[in-house]
Amino acid sequence: MKVKVLANILGANDRVAGENRRMFDDNGVFVINLMSSPGAGKTTLLENTLGALKDKFKIGVIEGDVATTADAERIEKMGVPVVQINTGSACHLDGSMIRDALDEFDLKSLDMLIIENVGNLVCPAEFNLGEDHKVMVLSTTEGDDKPLKYPLMFRESSALIINKTDLIPYTNFNMEKAVCDSLSINPGLMVFPLSCRTGEGLDGWYGWLESHLRKG
Amino acid sequence: MKVKVLANILGANDRVAGENRRMFDDNGVFVINLMSSPGAGKTTLLENTLGALKDKFKIGVIEGDVATTADAERIEKMGVPVVQINTGSACHLDGSMIRDALDEFDLKSLDMLIIENVGNLVCPAEFNLGEDHKVMVLSTTEGDDKPLKYPLMFRESSALIINKTDLIPYTNFNMEKAVCDSLSINPGLMVFPLSCRTGEGLDGWYGWLESHLRKG
Repeated sequence: MKVKVLANILGANDRVAGENRRMFDDNGVFVINLMSSPGAGKTTLLENTLGALKDKFKIGVIEGDVATTADAERIEKMGVPVVQINTGSACHLDGSMIRDALDEFDLKSLDMLIIENVGNLVCPAEFNLGEDHKVMVLSTTEGDDKPLKYPLMFRESSALIINKTDLIPYTNFNMEKAVCDSLSINPGLMVFPLSCRTGEGLDGWYGWLESHLRKG
Repeated sequence: MKVKVLANILGANDRVAGENRRMFDDNGVFVINLMSSPGAGKTTLLENTLGALKDKFKIGVIEGDVATTADAERIEKMGVPVVQINTGSACHLDGSMIRDALDEFDLKSLDMLIIENVGNLVCPAEFNLGEDHKVMVLSTTEGDDKPLKYPLMFRESSALIINKTDLIPYTNFNMEKAVCDSLSINPGLMVFPLSCRTGEGLDGWYGWLESHLRKG
């Protein structure tokens, strides 16, 4: 019974996500759905990414949070259009929330839309938003056991950013284990170890985004 | 419609949690529901806690994870009874999962049961398990903005453990902000800043547990 309810919810969501997808295609917008645990560094990565790419490409941002507009305020300072979605009790964004937020953008003018999902390593991976790619962030302080313990998000993502590499000396994080376990779940996963604090490794991530933007 | 489905699920869960509660009372077992983001350090905290208290009290553990038995294997090495629940796609433990796991324990022989929930800062806070207290772990590397962004778990918890204080020098975590924002949501919250790595601050947490165990 519970399973059937879930299947219905996911089916309905996929239909709305499909409509979002058509809107993105019609307007030539490349869309990233950025997911992670709370505090893995999505917003800081986004600030860095906007700083590097916003003069070359027109970028919009949707911020998803259970509560507060703190993240949208941080992004607004970067001078790009941003919409905050507060989900209330919901632990993930869904297609309808994105559909409603799209009314706030001039899609024709955008090259890329980055959607920062609610901080949650489980539920967001189940809900398509109409994005081109799911991208996830794992921070080294979370531990190298996360790929095997939370496999769905690793399976669904096209790229894995391993953030906070500057903190590895102070943790027992094993990069080789984290990467190998991630690839055992999803052999096609692109992996970008980096530090938003030191800037190390960010260029690879920017390059991946740019390669998709130039295609589009 | 979706809201009604959720209300029904939560109502059914509360009934099962109430039955669990009666079993715990009948057998004199003090029960903690331990919650946090993935990688905040719940299992390491549990290892430390068992090391400190298992000779004074009889302690059992239920490990909740989406996948793997990695955590149960870690706890088993501590020489206490442990049951692993794998939730599959579910992002939280619920009352029925605990009810089923209880069959694996000799409850009469236990002083305390610690339930380690699935790593998730949102959903577990909505599902009562029949516990005496919800306890949450926030790690300094997740950031001091988490109380306002994920208020429900801070509101529902009796105690907040702020773990990884040893990493504060390498982050921009502001302890005062984290504590004040947490207390603004839940003025009765007990706060224990500590480091499982250095051991600093652990005694306060053990003392809180012991004060409850001696009452029971």
